[in-house]
Amino acid sequence: MSLDDKATKPHDRLAQALAEDMAAVNALIRERMSSEHAPRIPEVTAHLIEAGGKRLRPMLTLAAARLVGYGGPFHVHLAATVEFIHTATLLHDDVVDESRQRRGRPTANLLWDNKSSVLVGDYLFARSFQLMTDTGNMRVMEILANASAVIAEGEVLQLTAAQNLATTEDIYLRVIRGKTAALFSAATEVGGIIGGAPEDQVQALFDYGDALGIAFQIVDDLLDYGGKSAEIGKNTGDDFRERKLTMPVIKAVALADEAERAFWKRVIEKGDQQDGDLEHAMALMTKHGTLEATRLAAIGWTDTARKALAKLPDHPLRQMLDDLADYVVERVR
Amino acid sequence: MSLDDKATKPHDRLAQALAEDMAAVNALIRERMSSEHAPRIPEVTAHLIEAGGKRLRPMLTLAAARLVGYGGPFHVHLAATVEFIHTATLLHDDVVDESRQRRGRPTANLLWDNKSSVLVGDYLFARSFQLMTDTGNMRVMEILANASAVIAEGEVLQLTAAQNLATTEDIYLRVIRGKTAALFSAATEVGGIIGGAPEDQVQALFDYGDALGIAFQIVDDLLDYGGKSAEIGKNTGDDFRERKLTMPVIKAVALADEAERAFWKRVIEKGDQQDGDLEHAMALMTKHGTLEATRLAAIGWTDTARKALAKLPDHPLRQMLDDLADYVVERVR
Repeated sequence: MSLDDKATKPHDRLAQALAEDMAAVNALIRERMSSEHAPRIPEVTAHLIEAGGKRLRPMLTLAAARLVGYGGPFHVHLAATVEFIHTATLLHDDVVDESRQRRGRPTANLLWDNKSSVLVGDYLFARSFQLMTDTGNMRVMEILANASAVIAEGEVLQLTAAQNLATTEDIYLRVIRGKTAALFSAATEVGGIIGGAPEDQVQALFDYGDALGIAFQIVDDLLDYGGKSAEIGKNTGDDFRERKLTMPVIKAVALADEAERAFWKRVIEKGDQQDGDLEHAMALMTKHGTLEATRLAAIGWTDTARKALAKLPDHPLRQMLDDLADYVVERVR
Repeated sequence: MSLDDKATKPHDRLAQALAEDMAAVNALIRERMSSEHAPRIPEVTAHLIEAGGKRLRPMLTLAAARLVGYGGPFHVHLAATVEFIHTATLLHDDVVDESRQRRGRPTANLLWDNKSSVLVGDYLFARSFQLMTDTGNMRVMEILANASAVIAEGEVLQLTAAQNLATTEDIYLRVIRGKTAALFSAATEVGGIIGGAPEDQVQALFDYGDALGIAFQIVDDLLDYGGKSAEIGKNTGDDFRERKLTMPVIKAVALADEAERAFWKRVIEKGDQQDGDLEHAMALMTKHGTLEATRLAAIGWTDTARKALAKLPDHPLRQMLDDLADYVVERVR
């Protein structure tokens, strides 16, 4: 289960404060995901978009715009744009990862086929660009087009870094900044821009989104190894089986002795995995303290996020965004 | 082999007349397909983009802009945008169709994997939107974003119409207008708009691109059944095997007697195909004259294209575009 799905107070408070705007976003999403001629498109989109995701990214856009005092209509378009880009990437990710479940339900590629997921994802990408042109604001278009490129670049980088023990923490940071943080930071940045915020506030909003997105992904990756408890649950070990190099593994590989290195080589590079290997991997990460170090890295990024927020005007939404940063790391605190 | 690959005089004359602009387009494409961090992206892109495609679509944009007297730099950006959108759709098409060859070379999904094709396609889509924002022209952005949505919609419609004998010529026209003609008409239209052409000329350019694209796809589909000669060659019958309903088959199904209908049901709907079925299908299409009727339909669309051209100012490029319409149907004349 991703953090998106978890209902906790900071997120709910934000949803409540933005309820009217979010209703407008949802109406716009429903309107724009339709297709006069190809009913498969809204079917596939609805399956994913109405599956109870928490709409974290569009809420960031709405909150950013409101926080800087925006009173116009276009933050709704931008929030829907961000959600469409996110949904398109989920559809394509599930094809790329050959996933069978998302948010506790069968994936679109399983219910329909890979073809539909690829093409409906393309449709949503195109729709997202239509939505952003509605704003008539060149700068937000540049930012969101750039974010889309950076997301795809991050995913490709992840693809080529997988199964490669030479992957460094720098490369890992680049991957997650691309595949996850780029959309968080674009979401907050365009909210500030459409709201006409001064440059230093736009920068602070970008920095908040960037750090929040990085913390969010590090936590997701840590939870894949059971989080703080390092216990194997039903959602544990997917990255291990897919031979993805995430922070706790990268740190463990860096500290490995010769025998441990041979182990990582076998399970990650060669992909020769046997019963008990996941447990052994987790024991190595515990031994070297890399789960704990990863946890501290995530908390460090939320601190960065909250420091950025402090540069923004005092506002009830600012407090909620501050709490949201806490919420992102709550499950590994 | 698609028409893109065939070097003939009208196309070459156009390429010669636009040589300087095309060199600028190619330089911009090379610049923008790069990725600082993910070398897989330019590798995959170069494989496709430098495979000797004829750059038909970007040439349409350049020709349209020059024809209406444009002297600025942005037709080059729009031409590169159009080529990036085209390349992204090719990458995704080959995944969707599980293709193994394109332009006589192994496809990217075969040389690398489906994942790379999906993600590099996404990257090129995003890059295409960045390129169009460089122009600062809202209207061309709207048109190209819309065209991208219509392309994906056409592909989804094709997916759901495949294997369904109830597919009508209207649906077929909608599919090919989406998957093929939408990018042709957007290519010519944005050339006119960036050139500041009056509305009636922009409309004429759109109409030319639309009709040319439709003719182009009908010819492609006809050639899949051997074209005029109705002879089985090495590129014959792909659509039949994939159970895609194209114009000659749709017309033959409409004219089928009971036994013929049972045949189409078996091979297209049930997908139960045996040796000799393709030959039998072609015999039925010849018997009902549907290959000839399809040929005439394609020629009819090139006439429409040329009539639209006649509304544009006299110009050497106008003559070349006129010849190009002829060239598109040349192989089935």
